[in-house]
Amino acid sequence: MASRRSIFYPAAEIYPNSPAGFWDFGPVGQAIRRKIVEVWRHEFVQKESMLEISGAQILPVAVFEGSGHVRSFADPVVRCLKCKRYERADHLISENIKKIVPESLPLEELEELIKKNKIKCPKCGGDFGKASKFKMMVETLVGKLDERKTFLRPEACQSIFLSFVRMVKTMRLKLPQGIAQVGSAFRNEISPRQAIARAVEFSQMECEVFFDPAEMDAVDGWEEVRGCKVRLLGLKSGKVEEIKAEDLVKKKIVPGRLIAYYLARTQQLWNKLGIPLEKMRFREVAKEERAFYSLATFDFEVETSLGWLELIANNYRAEYDLSGHMEHSGTNLEYAKEDGKKLIPHVWEISAGVERTLFAVLDASLKEGKEGDYFALNMKTAPFDCGIFPLVKKDGLLELARKIERELKDEWLEVFFDSAGSIGRRYARADEIGVPFSITVDYESLKEKDVTIRDRDTTKQARVKVGELKDVLRKLKDGEINFEKL
Amino acid sequence: MASRRSIFYPAAEIYPNSPAGFWDFGPVGQAIRRKIVEVWRHEFVQKESMLEISGAQILPVAVFEGSGHVRSFADPVVRCLKCKRYERADHLISENIKKIVPESLPLEELEELIKKNKIKCPKCGGDFGKASKFKMMVETLVGKLDERKTFLRPEACQSIFLSFVRMVKTMRLKLPQGIAQVGSAFRNEISPRQAIARAVEFSQMECEVFFDPAEMDAVDGWEEVRGCKVRLLGLKSGKVEEIKAEDLVKKKIVPGRLIAYYLARTQQLWNKLGIPLEKMRFREVAKEERAFYSLATFDFEVETSLGWLELIANNYRAEYDLSGHMEHSGTNLEYAKEDGKKLIPHVWEISAGVERTLFAVLDASLKEGKEGDYFALNMKTAPFDCGIFPLVKKDGLLELARKIERELKDEWLEVFFDSAGSIGRRYARADEIGVPFSITVDYESLKEKDVTIRDRDTTKQARVKVGELKDVLRKLKDGEINFEKL
Repeated sequence: MASRRSIFYPAAEIYPNSPAGFWDFGPVGQAIRRKIVEVWRHEFVQKESMLEISGAQILPVAVFEGSGHVRSFADPVVRCLKCKRYERADHLISENIKKIVPESLPLEELEELIKKNKIKCPKCGGDFGKASKFKMMVETLVGKLDERKTFLRPEACQSIFLSFVRMVKTMRLKLPQGIAQVGSAFRNEISPRQAIARAVEFSQMECEVFFDPAEMDAVDGWEEVRGCKVRLLGLKSGKVEEIKAEDLVKKKIVPGRLIAYYLARTQQLWNKLGIPLEKMRFREVAKEERAFYSLATFDFEVETSLGWLELIANNYRAEYDLSGHMEHSGTNLEYAKEDGKKLIPHVWEISAGVERTLFAVLDASLKEGKEGDYFALNMKTAPFDCGIFPLVKKDGLLELARKIERELKDEWLEVFFDSAGSIGRRYARADEIGVPFSITVDYESLKEKDVTIRDRDTTKQARVKVGELKDVLRKLKDGEINFEKL
Repeated sequence: MASRRSIFYPAAEIYPNSPAGFWDFGPVGQAIRRKIVEVWRHEFVQKESMLEISGAQILPVAVFEGSGHVRSFADPVVRCLKCKRYERADHLISENIKKIVPESLPLEELEELIKKNKIKCPKCGGDFGKASKFKMMVETLVGKLDERKTFLRPEACQSIFLSFVRMVKTMRLKLPQGIAQVGSAFRNEISPRQAIARAVEFSQMECEVFFDPAEMDAVDGWEEVRGCKVRLLGLKSGKVEEIKAEDLVKKKIVPGRLIAYYLARTQQLWNKLGIPLEKMRFREVAKEERAFYSLATFDFEVETSLGWLELIANNYRAEYDLSGHMEHSGTNLEYAKEDGKKLIPHVWEISAGVERTLFAVLDASLKEGKEGDYFALNMKTAPFDCGIFPLVKKDGLLELARKIERELKDEWLEVFFDSAGSIGRRYARADEIGVPFSITVDYESLKEKDVTIRDRDTTKQARVKVGELKDVLRKLKDGEINFEKL
């Protein structure tokens, strides 16, 4: 359906042999993706009073020496001796032995595992050669003709760390404070796959919360989440348990309230986006499997048709990033508290994949209907607020429908117009892409100045006065009324 | 002020010698930039029923062979023989002789002009060597280890041309139809300068309107704009004249109504963003100065403190792009009309720079106030809808102010909270970044359940009941009431 309705499709697909791992988003996919970002901005950035910045995607090499990426950001790969194809060594082994293999395993151990399990090339059956490290950052050549090497950022958050001291100085930043950003990142995936879930170019919604580790338990809003049951796949238990946020702290599963707070808020937000609670979990990640900079990691995973998919990396990056940039840049990145005490703030990171969230939201909303499958998207993520359909194009119905379209658009409602084919076909096309309401303009509309509004999920219909339409849609969207009440 | 309030600042500025031409946008700048995009999306994409897509930024080399960029997208440069610095030859000469020099001039003529006008290196006074062509596309190395060269797109529109045939097949596209996109583009500027107005990495809001040239005069909504006076700097007249849209067509200044329509709509939209009519013009561009693909070009320019700045390239690209991609990709990109006739649609392009628009909007709104300069941004582009200030932090005022903050945020109003310093200082800080209204919670608020709302431009104040605040702000924002009425 993604391809048929152009929700997403391979970039430059009209050219033969365009590289894998790049995707375009059509009008429906882009609208849903934008809505997801808007909900995240509303719930996280604005309600949590975070600062939202937007940084350059291309950054100098020195930045990635400071961040550690030049040294350590490389994937273990093996190459088929026969067809010359490269594979991610850890993924290849994981898929064969059905067990997670940490990417940080020494190359010799990976080679050993391939040999021991007799793993052959999945494409041609050939043997694999020695394992090596494949640099994952995408190199760019810019600027003056002489010194041109730069990198596309492999994670959007680096722009946040680079901006931190400026926020302290010019935005009167006081700890704890979140800085957020939505933007692209680029990773030289050796084998892009799983559609939009593992691409070279992708977007992230990131929050980096800076705090004083001595005050990790001082969290505004703690009362609101302390009883929230967080779905945790613990390292010890090996199964998903629902644990109250306050118990995560008491049982020392997390190092402090701030982390429990954001785990709970994250769970609530992705639930609002349309992911059912029973399909989500935070997977506690063992030290050897964690990113090199993280003191604690809880991957937020969602069960999809691709299996459990990691949507969000929740990392306790501590002072790793600011320390590294301070050392390599020579700029003092310390924060001075009101009492004069200086410290390098710690960081809790909530790094969410936009396209993975899109995939999971679509996947979770896919339902079987009488007229075929459709996305039962909620009103927050639906690509349009409603469709507008004149029953026929003649006798003034087209004009009235266009007039209603204009009025609703003036109110910043997002609507689309469809006058082609039978009403049934138009309903089905709108249902399929998740439009919650369809409005039909018929002959009665001319006399009675009202229209039919149809609910996607129940297919029930109601008559609403044209003059009240914008208020009714607004109230349905805000959840002030439900369709039954109409 | 941009730097002091972190509206924008150089990317990776904490590292010495970070390359020029890359910018980060702080919370205020990013908010205004986002609002500009939202207004454009509302007025152009949604009201004109365009399809909005979002394409990959990295594209294969073959795409740019099809688009002509590999062959022709290069800037003429000269290098100082003494300090080894590169300069754009055409810009260097233009600045020296105060006359526009087309970049398409043969290299020998550029060298001749430098010699004739005795132009020396502006940095060290040295002589310049021979002129050469500098490739403007930013190269990226991705994918498999073998064939890795790709390019970052130098103009966002290529994603639109690549998606066109898919839109026809899956979105039931009928001509005329606009396809829009907002996204980044990258150009290897030899001398990035003028702050954010000429960067290597920048963003564009682009509309490509596809149409049948035989039906160029069939434009929905023509009646609404035919009388609109378009400010044109014509090639012949050499001065700005206000010409009705319908006269642009009658006098054959533009090839058809569709182009006059979009010139008028563009002028209206940028006026809504806050650019006064008297500071804008469409500059008709001579053939030798136009981009190689354009049959007609009207640069939309705005007078700023940097001089006349081009915000939008309006190009009649005709069938250039689709033909090129059809030939190079081998994919048929023809459009079949209802009568069976096939054609390569023509394209009218409205390619607007996001950061240049941001710069012009800030520049046009800068006013002198009693407490210092401030941005008199309108409510559409202001970074926040209002500020909320408790008079003091004690006696329950802080709590009441926080409660009001939460309620307004729940209504999707964008507000910020400030409890530090005197009320006067807080007003001044909010005024400076263009916040239109400041709300003060004082002792009376506790008893009377009302607050003071202060208008930035007049500094007048009114009392409003807390319960009515969200409606009042919404109405002020939508222009349903004005402050005087309060």
